Amino acid sequence: MEEAKRQKMCAETPAYRMPDIIATKRDGGELSPAEIRWFTANLQSDDVDDSQIGALLMAMYLKGLSTSETLALTKAMRDSGEILDWPEHWQGTLVDKHSTGGIGDKISLPLAPALAACDMKVPMISGRGLGHTGGTLDKLEAIPGYTVLVAKERMTAILEEVGCCIVGQTSNLVPADKKLYATRDVTSTVGSVPLITASIVSKKAAENVNFLVLDVKVGKAAFMQTIAEGRQLAQSMVSVSKGLGVKTSAFLTDMNAPIGNTMGNALEVAEALQCLQGGGPDDLNELVCKLGGYLLYNSGKASTPEAGIAAINSTLQDGSACKKFQAMLLSQGVSVGVAEKLCTNAMGCVDDAWKVLKRAAYTTELSAERSGYVQDLDALALGKVTLELGAGRTVAGADIDHAVGLRLTVRVGSKVEKGQTWIYVYHNSTLSGDHVRRLQSAVTIGPDEVKSPPSRILEIIE
Amino acid sequence: MEEAKRQKMCAETPAYRMPDIIATKRDGGELSPAEIRWFTANLQSDDVDDSQIGALLMAMYLKGLSTSETLALTKAMRDSGEILDWPEHWQGTLVDKHSTGGIGDKISLPLAPALAACDMKVPMISGRGLGHTGGTLDKLEAIPGYTVLVAKERMTAILEEVGCCIVGQTSNLVPADKKLYATRDVTSTVGSVPLITASIVSKKAAENVNFLVLDVKVGKAAFMQTIAEGRQLAQSMVSVSKGLGVKTSAFLTDMNAPIGNTMGNALEVAEALQCLQGGGPDDLNELVCKLGGYLLYNSGKASTPEAGIAAINSTLQDGSACKKFQAMLLSQGVSVGVAEKLCTNAMGCVDDAWKVLKRAAYTTELSAERSGYVQDLDALALGKVTLELGAGRTVAGADIDHAVGLRLTVRVGSKVEKGQTWIYVYHNSTLSGDHVRRLQSAVTIGPDEVKSPPSRILEIIE
Repeated sequence: MEEAKRQKMCAETPAYRMPDIIATKRDGGELSPAEIRWFTANLQSDDVDDSQIGALLMAMYLKGLSTSETLALTKAMRDSGEILDWPEHWQGTLVDKHSTGGIGDKISLPLAPALAACDMKVPMISGRGLGHTGGTLDKLEAIPGYTVLVAKERMTAILEEVGCCIVGQTSNLVPADKKLYATRDVTSTVGSVPLITASIVSKKAAENVNFLVLDVKVGKAAFMQTIAEGRQLAQSMVSVSKGLGVKTSAFLTDMNAPIGNTMGNALEVAEALQCLQGGGPDDLNELVCKLGGYLLYNSGKASTPEAGIAAINSTLQDGSACKKFQAMLLSQGVSVGVAEKLCTNAMGCVDDAWKVLKRAAYTTELSAERSGYVQDLDALALGKVTLELGAGRTVAGADIDHAVGLRLTVRVGSKVEKGQTWIYVYHNSTLSGDHVRRLQSAVTIGPDEVKSPPSRILEIIE
Repeated sequence: MEEAKRQKMCAETPAYRMPDIIATKRDGGELSPAEIRWFTANLQSDDVDDSQIGALLMAMYLKGLSTSETLALTKAMRDSGEILDWPEHWQGTLVDKHSTGGIGDKISLPLAPALAACDMKVPMISGRGLGHTGGTLDKLEAIPGYTVLVAKERMTAILEEVGCCIVGQTSNLVPADKKLYATRDVTSTVGSVPLITASIVSKKAAENVNFLVLDVKVGKAAFMQTIAEGRQLAQSMVSVSKGLGVKTSAFLTDMNAPIGNTMGNALEVAEALQCLQGGGPDDLNELVCKLGGYLLYNSGKASTPEAGIAAINSTLQDGSACKKFQAMLLSQGVSVGVAEKLCTNAMGCVDDAWKVLKRAAYTTELSAERSGYVQDLDALALGKVTLELGAGRTVAGADIDHAVGLRLTVRVGSKVEKGQTWIYVYHNSTLSGDHVRRLQSAVTIGPDEVKSPPSRILEIIE
């Protein structure tokens, strides 16, 4: 936090003692907004020791936070750094989406430009991948020249001109979350609904958008394994987000099989381009249209959710979303030639992407070990192999390989013949026997016909 | 911890990850002895962050530790530093006492020499006071020349020659406790029975004594407010201490009124000398004789507890305990003249102590505000005023004033007349109206006759 801001916050509130604050939460009591504000403002001061942050986070994890405590923490975190401000005449059009993280999740790439094509302003601040969950910034960096470091003034200019940008978080946006998240990460206190809520919502609130849609993944490859858990988190985030003045809807979406057919950075860019050109896989198209459609509806831009969905779909079909994407690439450092090749060539086949995107040295096809119907595609197993091929990182800040990844030729419900290729593996080092074995185990083929699930959307919470 | 020892412990055990250890305890699981050993050995290494220590301590506080976890933690803490070793022929005679801390508690001063006079070896390692609880070392330092810093070799020599010493803890004795206690202190995780057990017992186990007696204070001025809480702690400590091979008994003793009549360092030394010369207050005499008597009984030196009590009492009556105290003072830096004046003069009156001990500049007598019987003497209130007069410290390492303190002329049950002096206040700065008011509130005088409690000992746990 800027020193001036911290001093201001301290001057506003009486001084507290961390041992007292910890003892209150330890005994299951409720912390006052002033106590929470003081703690958050002094996270990096001499008044708060790292051991005290660890102890308080564990007490919060085990004893929980009330709705008003969660709201106070989220507000205090939002206020710990810069809050973006936007021209007055944009009010009512500022929108964003947040996802809790899934395998093959490239939704942001078509969604931001599709919304921009509907005259919305989308100041999307994204993150990098860690573990088997990919990051939107990493995917975009598969495009030669793309820069995620964009200063606030430049963001405003891009939004004015294009309507959307997808950038990294600057160090002065919600600095309290950086400290708290880093501490939660090493103290096994990540999985707490109020702490997740405060972390996610404070960052979106600092973006200062008017409408927000949350994509809460549920399933074997998601942080929340059950619908009940996902619903609890979604309700908490919607309630706190509304408490901060951001009209918010949450979608519970299925995360058992990967989204679309590709996993890995360049491969996912290629698939996002297919979607932007009206030819993406059904599940990806559905998620983009519905998440975007609800934002249009919530903002009053569309009179019904259905009208919103139709409007987003039009931008994918008529090329206007793709034009916005191309313009965004240009304003974020991509050369005219690269942007044009990506966005104006017919991208009917993912392999076309290799004309501009980095290609892995080797391609290995794996074939189905029996005939039948695909019963299950294990997104978690596929995500872990993708990570181990080099597409992701296990330690924050580590380099990744944008070219490697997986491409499925089947989906849940597909009929396959024994020996038929079901997956392409793009790799830059020898594919190990262990990887082949794990990939083969990730697809379940059985004799019974299965219906592809009609929708990934399980529930909408408003 | 010494680096060599740490490396040895690490080499013995597989490597663990703190987040996993924290998560196990967070979810109420049981940590293995190897995990506990690894954590304790790596407390100050790069593998363990302060935030992780805070989080684990809070999880331990809220989820508890099983008996075997507490035993493993205590062992690991004992093994984190030096374990004192003693000549083979002392085995079976090495004894010590530990108190959880009370107001006016000067028991160690007569007890150690009384045990030495019974041919026991007493390598007593004591602490300093913090807050309203005094420290044995601070009391002894009221004697000019007394040094608490004694090297291990010198300890052995003193024990060989005198039989007892009362010294400070060296930095290489249970270093893990230093780190853990400092962290518990700032994270509001002090009040956990297993953590208190491990902290106390590990230090006594590192002294490597054969028999131990624990004085667990219970009451308004004690850490444990109820007999049930005290009993729980006593049982835990007795069980773990036995698990480490130290035969242990615990006394639950009343800590509502102060022990004896004096509070403050020099004043308590004077009262301890009265006890050593057979003329101490009844409650102090009783505690010294019974705690010591049980040690003699447990060690086989006395055939019954009663015989042990009688043996200790003899050493107080026949001057042999006082001679041991005098010898201990000489071996711990006190001059022949000072030691002689303290121990051979008739100390029938506490005021004689001022011949060698530092005297406060002012004495103020407070008189009873009504006639009747003393119903209650509030040890906590008296202890806090004593602290504020300068006899104690609120921050570790701060200087204290050995001369100031309180001396009661009444006990619970005493008959008093209005206007009669009930307390002497020895002070070096102006006595504030607030202090006078709080002292007057600390004595409750009522019309009903009350019996002085027959014994401070509430229960004995073996």
